[in-house]
Amino acid sequence: MRLLDQQTAEGILFTDEYQLTMAQFYYRMGVHEQPAQFDHFFRHYPNYGLHQAGYCINAGLEWLIDWMQEAHFQDKDLDYLRSQTTRTGKRLFQEDFLGWLKANGNFKAISLDAIPEGRVVHPQVPLTSVRGPLAMAQILESPLLNFLNYQTLIATKAARIKNISRSNLLLEFGMRRGQSTGANAGARAAMIGGADFTSNAGISHVLGYPPKGTHAHSMVQLFIALGLGELEAFRAFSEIYPDDCVLLVDTVNTLESGLPNAIRVFEELRRKGHEPVGVRLDSGDLAYLAVQTARMLDEAGFSKTSITLSNELDEMVIWQIRTQIQAEAPRYGVDPDRLLSRLVYGVGTHLITSEGCPALDGVYKLVAVQKDDTWKPALKISETPGKTPNPGHKKVWRLYDKRGKAVVDLLGLAGEEPGKAAILKLHHPVELNVCQVMNNSEIAEIETLQVPVLDQGRLVYRMPGLEEIRSRQVADLDRLDEGVKRLVNPHIYHVSLTENLWQLKQELITAATHFTSEPEAIQV
Amino acid sequence: MRLLDQQTAEGILFTDEYQLTMAQFYYRMGVHEQPAQFDHFFRHYPNYGLHQAGYCINAGLEWLIDWMQEAHFQDKDLDYLRSQTTRTGKRLFQEDFLGWLKANGNFKAISLDAIPEGRVVHPQVPLTSVRGPLAMAQILESPLLNFLNYQTLIATKAARIKNISRSNLLLEFGMRRGQSTGANAGARAAMIGGADFTSNAGISHVLGYPPKGTHAHSMVQLFIALGLGELEAFRAFSEIYPDDCVLLVDTVNTLESGLPNAIRVFEELRRKGHEPVGVRLDSGDLAYLAVQTARMLDEAGFSKTSITLSNELDEMVIWQIRTQIQAEAPRYGVDPDRLLSRLVYGVGTHLITSEGCPALDGVYKLVAVQKDDTWKPALKISETPGKTPNPGHKKVWRLYDKRGKAVVDLLGLAGEEPGKAAILKLHHPVELNVCQVMNNSEIAEIETLQVPVLDQGRLVYRMPGLEEIRSRQVADLDRLDEGVKRLVNPHIYHVSLTENLWQLKQELITAATHFTSEPEAIQV
Repeated sequence: MRLLDQQTAEGILFTDEYQLTMAQFYYRMGVHEQPAQFDHFFRHYPNYGLHQAGYCINAGLEWLIDWMQEAHFQDKDLDYLRSQTTRTGKRLFQEDFLGWLKANGNFKAISLDAIPEGRVVHPQVPLTSVRGPLAMAQILESPLLNFLNYQTLIATKAARIKNISRSNLLLEFGMRRGQSTGANAGARAAMIGGADFTSNAGISHVLGYPPKGTHAHSMVQLFIALGLGELEAFRAFSEIYPDDCVLLVDTVNTLESGLPNAIRVFEELRRKGHEPVGVRLDSGDLAYLAVQTARMLDEAGFSKTSITLSNELDEMVIWQIRTQIQAEAPRYGVDPDRLLSRLVYGVGTHLITSEGCPALDGVYKLVAVQKDDTWKPALKISETPGKTPNPGHKKVWRLYDKRGKAVVDLLGLAGEEPGKAAILKLHHPVELNVCQVMNNSEIAEIETLQVPVLDQGRLVYRMPGLEEIRSRQVADLDRLDEGVKRLVNPHIYHVSLTENLWQLKQELITAATHFTSEPEAIQV
Repeated sequence: MRLLDQQTAEGILFTDEYQLTMAQFYYRMGVHEQPAQFDHFFRHYPNYGLHQAGYCINAGLEWLIDWMQEAHFQDKDLDYLRSQTTRTGKRLFQEDFLGWLKANGNFKAISLDAIPEGRVVHPQVPLTSVRGPLAMAQILESPLLNFLNYQTLIATKAARIKNISRSNLLLEFGMRRGQSTGANAGARAAMIGGADFTSNAGISHVLGYPPKGTHAHSMVQLFIALGLGELEAFRAFSEIYPDDCVLLVDTVNTLESGLPNAIRVFEELRRKGHEPVGVRLDSGDLAYLAVQTARMLDEAGFSKTSITLSNELDEMVIWQIRTQIQAEAPRYGVDPDRLLSRLVYGVGTHLITSEGCPALDGVYKLVAVQKDDTWKPALKISETPGKTPNPGHKKVWRLYDKRGKAVVDLLGLAGEEPGKAAILKLHHPVELNVCQVMNNSEIAEIETLQVPVLDQGRLVYRMPGLEEIRSRQVADLDRLDEGVKRLVNPHIYHVSLTENLWQLKQELITAATHFTSEPEAIQV
């Protein structure tokens, strides 16, 4: 795509057409500037088929805010809307509405509260709440979901992979399998969730981290094609990068050629006063090859040289590899724990695509609208009970028990103070008769999750650096029960409604259902 | 991401770090300007688990070429490389190499041949062949794969969905579930593969197509929150968009509220001289609801009004819905064929993510390198035979039989003329002893698949418009056997090597394997 076209396609028109037709409709009805609140939340944790997430890691906010601060209707965008026609060939968008968009088609009147990036988050909980003039809050739906859904999905996947990789280095390698330049968002999200570095050079630059990587098979192939061999390739490479020498040993044959050649070059390096960094295995039975590699490196005196594994890894494959090494290493006289501690994981495709669950089901729902200076809660009654969103202005608290562990995310009405009640009634967000009672004495800490980010378009939040976001992720996961972090069939974390919010929701459902059964009775 | 950062992250540094370290290594070895050829191909059709593709639709070339024509090392990019350090704190990239990059760090010396967008393509076949100075051809690997893998993946998924949707309109709705702005690439690819329109406004503008969409649940919710009802919402909407009125009928209750209200508004519209366009169903049992909707619309005299289905659709769900309608419609007095013909499919998440297989395994392999004015074929011997790429300069032909159907994609050496042989030996690309023989008299047409696109950086190809690309897709699918297009367990299309190419590959494998067993014997 040419640069000018890219600016058009990634500017304010980076939204769905129906947001624009609805915005004009609201304009025509005179409600386009009516204050409205939309909540963004997801309904389900990612389910990868045979394994499932028990938590998500929130991500994407900074890039959304950056976009909101730039995006606005420019003349070229308005010209495009001017050119759109109805089925009968008339203009679809009228000049008065376009005039309004020219003056007001930006996000300067929008206020936004959000749960910060890097935090552990759960379904049904509003991650982002948007308040502002109806028309622009509506147009924001598609880009907001686009920016937040994907990064949260990938930060979550990265956290799962990091969880099983333990203290080992985790590298994000997926650029070539991402969705076009969306791969940059994937790399950032992976680093929020737990990847230590990415191979993607440009995004590393932007994020202020060194990118990782050494060489590909093609380097060795080149030498062979020129009539030389793998040994010469390794030797030459080690001379250019004596202190950063990671050799990919599977171009010809891992155990019979790559590894013996690498060891020979490592010995030469060491004689010259350099310490080799490691080898990379990119094909074959990685667990078996890692054991043999460790054995051969140990025997040659390179017991600390790292072993990077890559090739279709994900959390389950890494788990299997670690398990297999635990069982198999002793048979070859290799200490499994020492071997595990020297592994580095390079994860590409399965991380950047969230293989098994390539989309998060985040939605953006109208929850309240102002009429005559009073906020009216709004509800969409769904035929699937779980799809009925929670109405009105809400607040979200996280409750910690005496162990310091998070035990429930509680949704209530804005004015409530759950800390003041002696006994808390915690309603299941979907099931009617499921209710839990908690004594205030069991609660060690109550934390408000959302923070103000935009106040009428003005940034009122200090955007944290990536390192701070990552620390938050580590701290939050630390305060989560192990059962919730389990890779397969995790324990379900509680998300509850306060008594007041639950009552409001029931009343609205009753009222709306009443509407439904007597549609003819409505008076306008 | 801020705009300046975005330019950095999507410019020449939109590549993997190891491409840069290898480029400097080649520079140091004095081979950075040595002409080399890399082939891009994929190894496997997308496998969605319980169903599989039997062909792919090639896509992404235009955006790759646009990127190549802009991307080059700017001072800020070089400054970044200058700031990178080795593990011992020395500079990673030296000034002489950076000087070379400043002068030559662009794609102006690269020549590129490719199979055009929209064409049916198969595994192992070089879709793109890049020839040029080794260092820059190497740096191109990651962005080339990024741009081509994803669009080909999505064009393929769209073609499958269109194949089962038949003549019905297919709309791409997935922007909110794409990978950040990569959603634009997804929408374009979907339209190459078979989607008729997209809801994404910006990319529609760029591609020159009208975007599609009408309203969301929030419009109805707003009216309810304001004390009005669904009927009032529909009526007001129909007054603003009388000729484009598609009503979403599931906000309250599809059959008891949405549809009766929609019909009432449609009757009002018709009295005013406008023809309603349709309704959209977005939840519940879409097949059952479609039948009931058709029945109620028919009874009210709206037998041509369209019924758009959306909500987690993909090719298998659409197939199931169509099958269920065939069986169920007659029971309610609805003609199934007439109902099927009025359906419109809105496909979001499953199309833009290629659910079930979110990545195509396209790779970019060194196949030849020039030494002393002679091209030497290069080979990577893999322990998995199927992963050993085909060496050397190649040509790809598609052979058609007397029925006009494509029967084999044939890879041969550049100088070969398969049309001149009386009998063609077709070697299986991987299996050693599988060989087929074809009589020249069986072949009706031989077509060369790759076309020259860049000649030393100069565009020598007229970039076709999207409509032309789409026609090509339709024509190519028409010339493909039905069995190959089957959604589940498709018939395998033949990809073969000529006798000459096969012989060359065997010789190289033998030579390389010889190397392997005696690594000590190599003289430098």
